Amino acid sequence: MKDSAEDRLLRLGLRLPAQSPPAARYANTVQANGLLFVSGKGPSGSPRGKLGSAFTTDDGYAFARAAGLEVLAVVKASLGSLDRVRRVVKVQGFVNAEPHFAEPHLVLDGFSELMVEVFGERGVHARSVMGASSLRDQLPLVVDSIFEVDEDGRSAYR
Amino acid sequence: MKDSAEDRLLRLGLRLPAQSPPAARYANTVQANGLLFVSGKGPSGSPRGKLGSAFTTDDGYAFARAAGLEVLAVVKASLGSLDRVRRVVKVQGFVNAEPHFAEPHLVLDGFSELMVEVFGERGVHARSVMGASSLRDQLPLVVDSIFEVDEDGRSAYR
Amino acid sequence: MKDSAEDRLLRLGLRLPAQSPPAARYANTVQANGLLFVSGKGPSGSPRGKLGSAFTTDDGYAFARAAGLEVLAVVKASLGSLDRVRRVVKVQGFVNAEPHFAEPHLVLDGFSELMVEVFGERGVHARSVMGASSLRDQLPLVVDSIFEVDEDGRSAYR
Repeated sequence: MKDSAEDRLLRLGLRLPAQSPPAARYANTVQANGLLFVSGKGPSGSPRGKLGSAFTTDDGYAFARAAGLEVLAVVKASLGSLDRVRRVVKVQGFVNAEPHFAEPHLVLDGFSELMVEVFGERGVHARSVMGASSLRDQLPLVVDSIFEVDEDGRSAYR
Repeated sequence: MKDSAEDRLLRLGLRLPAQSPPAARYANTVQANGLLFVSGKGPSGSPRGKLGSAFTTDDGYAFARAAGLEVLAVVKASLGSLDRVRRVVKVQGFVNAEPHFAEPHLVLDGFSELMVEVFGERGVHARSVMGASSLRDQLPLVVDSIFEVDEDGRSAYR
Repeated sequence: MKDSAEDRLLRLGLRLPAQSPPAARYANTVQANGLLFVSGKGPSGSPRGKLGSAFTTDDGYAFARAAGLEVLAVVKASLGSLDRVRRVVKVQGFVNAEPHFAEPHLVLDGFSELMVEVFGERGVHARSVMGASSLRDQLPLVVDSIFEVDEDGRSAYR
């Protein structure tokens, strides 16, 4: 169990927010055939506006990291422990972007780097990122994610 | 078999449209490892225009519900019966949106609520939604979806 | 082994580019439960600009085909041989598009048709396409993809 995701979270001093509720008639997560599909999550604190006008790339990086903590909160609530995550599989970043904004990938790095900090090599994922013309409530970004999980409910670090 | 998806569809008085053909050299659905991946579908009747200018949120809700019927038609054509659906797993909504349009989530609710009407708890899914700068033929929205299905070809309600 | 994907590639005279490195701390591919998730890839040669202003639909078709070769290079590097691909499962095309651009689907056909040329019926996939308000480095498009693979490391054509 050494160096598990929960251990790393503690060592990094990261605090997960409370799980945010789905905004409508859908679920935060659905598990099917060993994959956990997580609904799109934005940063906490309700920042609003677009990258390239209201916000800079550095702002966006911090928002993406905050969205990552929101996703981890939902995954932990769903699985009981982050140690049941075998792999962060796939991430899609939707960045609320002005047409001239060319750095959505640098924004999403805030999410990607958090996953590696918490899960180590298991946190390295496939990903895509794009600029959205708008997002719900003008959130600066939303991140969609898929995790591989242990279906027997055991830790991936045993 | 009581209260199966096909039963509910009848009781709700919903009529599925004919399966729309893929617009090019691709398939309406591909099944792999128990998951049915469905190509993006828009509403029937070819409405055209963007949310936030040509269309209101209420218009969009109705379009999303119509897109849901298109998706159900394709799933039924692929599986033979909607009762083979174990779970609606994941939905992504791409809304043709003006940059100021902040309610793509309320639009997608038209799709999400239809899934719950037809599949009950099995219809509650993970989802994401974003504003697209444009869509094919200026459709107001396209919905992408993944279903968990019974690979043995049996009903999920047995 | 007749008419395998590698055979077709040779016969078509297609040359795959070198695998492009991920632009940040993520992986080109992650395999989980028989599915290979591939990070979003753009065309080689670094063209920049939007469909509907800098580029025409025909330009976009050629870029989508080039992105397809980039994806194949990454899949081959990951699996050792394209013959381990059982099916091209799902494709999402993100096209850097002006708000009036209504032909992202004709652009993505460049990718879809390449998959069918190389994999035959196994190359026919489910897909979605949308206009993005912007993309990294103003690439004209990025394609996200999922492949079903043989987990035992064997050819799908045996």
